[in-house]
Amino acid sequence: MTADAGAGSTGRDAILRAARRAFTLQPYAQVTMRGIAADAGVSASLIVKRFGTKEQLFSTVTDFGPAADELFDAPLEGLGRHMVLSLLKTRREQQVDPLLRVVFGLGNQDERSLMKERFRKQVTERLAGRLDGDQAQLRAELIVGMLLGLGAAIGLNRPDSAAEAADPGHLADVYAPALQALVVRA
Amino acid sequence: MTADAGAGSTGRDAILRAARRAFTLQPYAQVTMRGIAADAGVSASLIVKRFGTKEQLFSTVTDFGPAADELFDAPLEGLGRHMVLSLLKTRREQQVDPLLRVVFGLGNQDERSLMKERFRKQVTERLAGRLDGDQAQLRAELIVGMLLGLGAAIGLNRPDSAAEAADPGHLADVYAPALQALVVRA
Repeated sequence: MTADAGAGSTGRDAILRAARRAFTLQPYAQVTMRGIAADAGVSASLIVKRFGTKEQLFSTVTDFGPAADELFDAPLEGLGRHMVLSLLKTRREQQVDPLLRVVFGLGNQDERSLMKERFRKQVTERLAGRLDGDQAQLRAELIVGMLLGLGAAIGLNRPDSAAEAADPGHLADVYAPALQALVVRA
Repeated sequence: MTADAGAGSTGRDAILRAARRAFTLQPYAQVTMRGIAADAGVSASLIVKRFGTKEQLFSTVTDFGPAADELFDAPLEGLGRHMVLSLLKTRREQQVDPLLRVVFGLGNQDERSLMKERFRKQVTERLAGRLDGDQAQLRAELIVGMLLGLGAAIGLNRPDSAAEAADPGHLADVYAPALQALVVRA
């Protein structure tokens, strides 16, 4: 990846962060591209060029597909540890939790339902489809719950979170066995 | 407990649920006792009689002390299982998660900070104080995260949550060992 692509991706992250904030804090109808642009420190036309209309931007913000691609990109025997390390890496590098936004109030009831539905399909059901053995749906729900819980544990205890201060490898040692027990349970 | 006390506590729960909804969905200044009363199906004067002013009601809604009393009311050797069963029991009986409201947007930034601070003191730090061995703060954060994650797993997959449909004893068999491993880790 070139330095240019790196700078571009930083701008992209800033826009997405600002968009998430806007859709979380305001009803959909009140969100403006201009407001998101001001928050992100870019022009509204740049956002349109990169993400399209407000509706398309909303759709991108509620898309958990890329997060799931990364979280689940490991063989089953090492998936528990991979998920923990991947979540911590995304949180540090992009300053956003890959999953936790689903539990925050986003827009009105319809928008919340849409987001939950996408989350179920793109995250929970996709994981369930990869698990062998009994009760794959139950185990997938609980694994995803533990991943959400890890992000919540860090976020709630900021700026003094012991989990956030911990070395990622150590945190994986402590937390991942619980996920792995649910991944491989037959 | 008499039938009367039971009915009284149902009214109390309805008021608290309506208050949580109101403080979650609206800025503090816009919340009215009249609106909460209408939502709860009681009179505003009954709310004042039971909970005092709007400020006092907000304080009650952001109080995690009673939830922590119940969640942590077990010896360390059985605490993991007790926490899971207690959380499920509260969710079923009171139709509200004892902890999860802390992650939902509640009012403005100041109110959110206040709520997080109380949660830290009343839940995470209290649990950390009970744990023996190394890294009690880190383990307490992760245990609380797992409890939040369990509630989130159920809530996000409604109405088809496999975790919600599961027998509580079975769910404790599957989920509690992970918590217990963090409770007793030396």
